[in-house]
Amino acid sequence: MTSTGLNEDMTTTPEASWTHIALERRSRSYWRVIFDHPPVNTITATTVMELSELVELIERATELNVIVFDSANPDFFLAHYDVESDPMKTAALPAGPTGMPAWLDLTARLSRAPVVSIASIRGRARGAGSEFVLACDLRFASRERAVLGQFEVGAGFIPGGGPMARLSRLVGRGRALEILLVADDFDGLRAEQYGDVNRAIADDRLDTEIEEIAARLAQFDHDAIARTKSYVDHVTLPPDDELPAALTDFRQSFGRPGPLARLAKLEELGLNVDSDLERRLGARVVEATPQVAS
Amino acid sequence: MTSTGLNEDMTTTPEASWTHIALERRSRSYWRVIFDHPPVNTITATTVMELSELVELIERATELNVIVFDSANPDFFLAHYDVESDPMKTAALPAGPTGMPAWLDLTARLSRAPVVSIASIRGRARGAGSEFVLACDLRFASRERAVLGQFEVGAGFIPGGGPMARLSRLVGRGRALEILLVADDFDGLRAEQYGDVNRAIADDRLDTEIEEIAARLAQFDHDAIARTKSYVDHVTLPPDDELPAALTDFRQSFGRPGPLARLAKLEELGLNVDSDLERRLGARVVEATPQVAS
Amino acid sequence: MTSTGLNEDMTTTPEASWTHIALERRSRSYWRVIFDHPPVNTITATTVMELSELVELIERATELNVIVFDSANPDFFLAHYDVESDPMKTAALPAGPTGMPAWLDLTARLSRAPVVSIASIRGRARGAGSEFVLACDLRFASRERAVLGQFEVGAGFIPGGGPMARLSRLVGRGRALEILLVADDFDGLRAEQYGDVNRAIADDRLDTEIEEIAARLAQFDHDAIARTKSYVDHVTLPPDDELPAALTDFRQSFGRPGPLARLAKLEELGLNVDSDLERRLGARVVEATPQVAS
Repeated sequence: MTSTGLNEDMTTTPEASWTHIALERRSRSYWRVIFDHPPVNTITATTVMELSELVELIERATELNVIVFDSANPDFFLAHYDVESDPMKTAALPAGPTGMPAWLDLTARLSRAPVVSIASIRGRARGAGSEFVLACDLRFASRERAVLGQFEVGAGFIPGGGPMARLSRLVGRGRALEILLVADDFDGLRAEQYGDVNRAIADDRLDTEIEEIAARLAQFDHDAIARTKSYVDHVTLPPDDELPAALTDFRQSFGRPGPLARLAKLEELGLNVDSDLERRLGARVVEATPQVAS
Repeated sequence: MTSTGLNEDMTTTPEASWTHIALERRSRSYWRVIFDHPPVNTITATTVMELSELVELIERATELNVIVFDSANPDFFLAHYDVESDPMKTAALPAGPTGMPAWLDLTARLSRAPVVSIASIRGRARGAGSEFVLACDLRFASRERAVLGQFEVGAGFIPGGGPMARLSRLVGRGRALEILLVADDFDGLRAEQYGDVNRAIADDRLDTEIEEIAARLAQFDHDAIARTKSYVDHVTLPPDDELPAALTDFRQSFGRPGPLARLAKLEELGLNVDSDLERRLGARVVEATPQVAS
Repeated sequence: MTSTGLNEDMTTTPEASWTHIALERRSRSYWRVIFDHPPVNTITATTVMELSELVELIERATELNVIVFDSANPDFFLAHYDVESDPMKTAALPAGPTGMPAWLDLTARLSRAPVVSIASIRGRARGAGSEFVLACDLRFASRERAVLGQFEVGAGFIPGGGPMARLSRLVGRGRALEILLVADDFDGLRAEQYGDVNRAIADDRLDTEIEEIAARLAQFDHDAIARTKSYVDHVTLPPDDELPAALTDFRQSFGRPGPLARLAKLEELGLNVDSDLERRLGARVVEATPQVAS
């Protein structure tokens, strides 16, 4: 994965065992991470563990300036969370250094790391996938291929990984409420217009432009990046204690018959696999609605 | 107004006596309200009373998911406030459950209600009309026919119903100051660009798109909507105690000769009726400026 | 400079001695300021002193409604700060009435003044030049000729005059981090898209449109402007005590070898004069990066 020799003394690093993400150290100041969990890059307890280990590596990399996240699957950046029929599996993950549950812990720490994190969004990033990109510092979306969305409310769930905290501050009340409550898909141009991403870039230019930005950042003074970012963090990041309540709500949804019935219906229709449902989840989430006698 | 039978046992509800707004219950989860106060949908003490009663109905409707506001007059959504030559008439309205004066009370409660409120803006929404749409959760503007504005400063008044609190958080300092201080009209595309509305929609598509959004929301789990919205409220709503000071300033303007002279001049030119002044109020509000010997 | 006679009794006002800025009193309610410090409108200790005096004049002008800032040089609005090879020269300027160092003091007071300040941005406004326009209330950018940027991080410095505080609130976390950390130039259209300026205006329309806005504001009731602005200030301005820490960081950069070496290289390449480096500083700031053996 690297030809620079930088990893020579790192054969025992955690990444050797990762199965959902791959780390490529381009240099001491520039890393890339590729999401590669077929068929649709769902996020599971395993992904959360690997990302937690990654964030620890980032925090220890004192010369690292920039880390780019992209996907091995051009149709799916990160589909969404998959509880693998066992919500306890995720709930059992140990809390992180912040004291918060693992998913909240790793996303909050990524946002505060003295490094510029960049999401290169090609394909679908919904639910926890959208939450992950919202925790990155910069977001660039493929104009033709990015699809974003927080579909949870359509499935009867409360989004648990921080999008109410992060979207409200990023795009303002009206657009945050639309994304979260109407719960539909939106493309790169809409994401750009709403301020959800920095901007949309033509798909055939996306990799080149992000490479230029990353190469530029890799040359800069690490302390200047770290200190300047810390001042922006102070103004823009939600306080940690704002985050856990919604995650508790998300988990409690699994004890309510309505959300469980909607989730079961979506699984029946093709959730978590490469299906028409997954490709058009924003439009088709309404099919989860129970038919009631009126 | 309804053919669903839902209102059968509601013949004594307040809405039977309303004269400025009409309520249409499409279903238990989806209502529509039509503003219909000829000639230009000004907001008066009567409108405020009826809207206060509406907000109480909304708060009691435990299955309601979505409420859409539109206008019977395609040229005027809600013109602006009309004190009917007697500012005391409005000031005498009883305070609401929040303890705030009626207009602040009902708009703050609408924003916090566990329901998605949608403003379908066709025609002019200025002054208190703009304040009302800012209190709604989602705003969609007709690309060709929406006109928004806070003209008050041009008439010598301080906007009193919360736009400094709401616009500042929605569109940022620079654009909020422009809307409030330059006090000119702006159209749907500018409103979209500034983030004042979610987006502008071609006029011949506006009703269809809002109907699709409302029908979608009507099918969703009520608790998921209510809980998710509450987290966004926590981050984005102004605290109630930020609101009353500007309303006091607005009312005190009626004791100052400058604003009174400007208001008298605007009334002479056609304020509150369907006139060229009302149609082009942003441009013509400068005619309220007293001519001084220089 | 004025033919209105308004300055007749003002021959002893500070502006007579100014050499970097010129004040034109169009009327009691409307002033214009022209930046004119060849060759590229750098900001030096002298500029800071003159702007401090200007802000004091603004605060005393009880009938002033609007002040427009533009540049005598269509290629450079305000290049950026120039410490004139002596950082102490600026640090020695007396603190202002807020207790903050002069640059923070005058920009914070300009933002709070009961007057609408408008930046008419034609040419480059980088570093402290960008900080100055961010302290103005309204910003309009020439579509063809405006260039904005915070290049400091590219040169190894922490921006010290408030852009982390002001940009974060104006354009949101993602775009603020991009502007500050990627540290590249951006044009008027990008500034409009990101919300950094109110809007971009075709260069041949810029002067006319700003003149129309200023003339309009000049006619309005001063108290209505002042009171309305104060409520927006309350929501949108950073607290003064958020500002000094980053300025301390900026100053400490001059004691670190990395930033000093980058700055020396930029000076060698043409910083502070009308050079290709100054014209394309966003692209060329990477040339400040020391070459290291890899």
